[in-house]
Amino acid sequence: MIDYRGLQALAMVIEHGGFERAARHLFITQSAVSQRVKHLEALIGQPVLMRTTPPKATAMGQRLHSHWQQVRLLEAGLGIASTPNQLTVRLTVNADSLATWLPEALVLPDHPNVSFDLLVEDQAVGLRRMRQGEVMACLCASAEPVNGGRVAFLGYLRYRAVASPEFIANYGLKDLSRLPDAPCLVFNRDDPLQHEFLATVVGGTPQRIHYCPSSEGFVEATRVGLGYGMIPELQFRDLLASGELVDVVPGYALSTPLYWHYWQTESDVMLNLRTQVIKIAKQRLLAEA
Amino acid sequence: MIDYRGLQALAMVIEHGGFERAARHLFITQSAVSQRVKHLEALIGQPVLMRTTPPKATAMGQRLHSHWQQVRLLEAGLGIASTPNQLTVRLTVNADSLATWLPEALVLPDHPNVSFDLLVEDQAVGLRRMRQGEVMACLCASAEPVNGGRVAFLGYLRYRAVASPEFIANYGLKDLSRLPDAPCLVFNRDDPLQHEFLATVVGGTPQRIHYCPSSEGFVEATRVGLGYGMIPELQFRDLLASGELVDVVPGYALSTPLYWHYWQTESDVMLNLRTQVIKIAKQRLLAEA
Repeated sequence: MIDYRGLQALAMVIEHGGFERAARHLFITQSAVSQRVKHLEALIGQPVLMRTTPPKATAMGQRLHSHWQQVRLLEAGLGIASTPNQLTVRLTVNADSLATWLPEALVLPDHPNVSFDLLVEDQAVGLRRMRQGEVMACLCASAEPVNGGRVAFLGYLRYRAVASPEFIANYGLKDLSRLPDAPCLVFNRDDPLQHEFLATVVGGTPQRIHYCPSSEGFVEATRVGLGYGMIPELQFRDLLASGELVDVVPGYALSTPLYWHYWQTESDVMLNLRTQVIKIAKQRLLAEA
Repeated sequence: MIDYRGLQALAMVIEHGGFERAARHLFITQSAVSQRVKHLEALIGQPVLMRTTPPKATAMGQRLHSHWQQVRLLEAGLGIASTPNQLTVRLTVNADSLATWLPEALVLPDHPNVSFDLLVEDQAVGLRRMRQGEVMACLCASAEPVNGGRVAFLGYLRYRAVASPEFIANYGLKDLSRLPDAPCLVFNRDDPLQHEFLATVVGGTPQRIHYCPSSEGFVEATRVGLGYGMIPELQFRDLLASGELVDVVPGYALSTPLYWHYWQTESDVMLNLRTQVIKIAKQRLLAEA
């Protein structure tokens, strides 16, 4: 059996970002935390923490930490009083979901001791973290389950290419052939939406790109005329109604499917969360592309 | 002199995320790009790219790339026609500025060939990138210039602790001593605002934290009652007016100063950008804490 007291110390150091903070949470001394972690390392036969500021988990430390989180979630399902501490549920999610419909799905009144540790990741990184057991669930566009995992379809997030009316006028975009030369907003290097849009509409690639890795900043950047970009309909209804943003190509939309990746062995908390995520997704996302 | 043709190939591979894409931008073959990079490496005597997918710059590659960017910006100031390609201006910025007032400051009508590569970073990372010459400017809360750099004061971003009225009622937060037990939203491990707020108001630390690394998701999470958190006033005026969000401690606010870190040798584009950033900041930020 793993040394769970050492594992708890390790988890506290990782979650609270230091030995002193872990000690405060465990109501023991800093030197006791340090000894427990050292003891764990002696038993495992390799380091679990790099002694940086803040300390960082080694690959083994990360595996142990996610094992700890899974065990804690399973413990919570036991319904016994020996688990007064908070449970951390770590999830990888896509930025646009977190900026729009997802927060509502995370409100779990039946589980007052759950804390979410949300990581905004591109699909490839999110799925890798899922595969390596670092997260309890992964929200992304891939329908392919990881080993030992399952997948639930949530719905489609529909994007439209929008810009300010002044931007459309300045760059003469009534003539779509001028689109490739107009500045294009792209979330980051893994965001393919604008390139797909351009390839479909005019068969070109954007010649001038602003990288803007913030969902809200992206909307604001289109509003002030920095560029055009693909924005989820959920995010710009008001600006469309007020005329501050308009469609670059009226009638054109691009839909991304979203899936919930979860583990076959699911604790009560995770089952409850999945049910809630599917329910809210059904209300906010589209059933068809 | 550095081999600038090789340097250009390197920059294109980094900026476009691959040899093939770089080739398309340079209108040469993929093998020509590869040869130019190899030639550069032979001259420098060390690798500049790790051949991963996408390729990643080595530390030397990064230094060369930022040198390339600075040279390109200086070229642009020459006002000669030999620089038809786009100029990339890489900046590190804080998430809340990018989500609110910053995009407006990036619209530079006099420089139609500038592309922004925005990196959202915590202050420590932003300043380190500035120090290592990886970025042209850094927007953060530190007043201390880096070596060879200068600093311009922009103004204060004022935060208030807000939550939904239901949240206040559910957790009995009319009694402030219950605040430490209410779920608290924190942007990430480097966000000290909520801890400062609690320490000042009730002398405690949050016992239950949701990490939510999205400015817009953060606002939405407070609105739906997932937790309370510190939000820039710029971001929630509408929700405050509609009563969807209320102050947790009326009258309490916390202000963060913002500074623009720039290089002493400033190209026309960067001078123009700084002037614009200072102007918009003056309109949107507060002059006093």
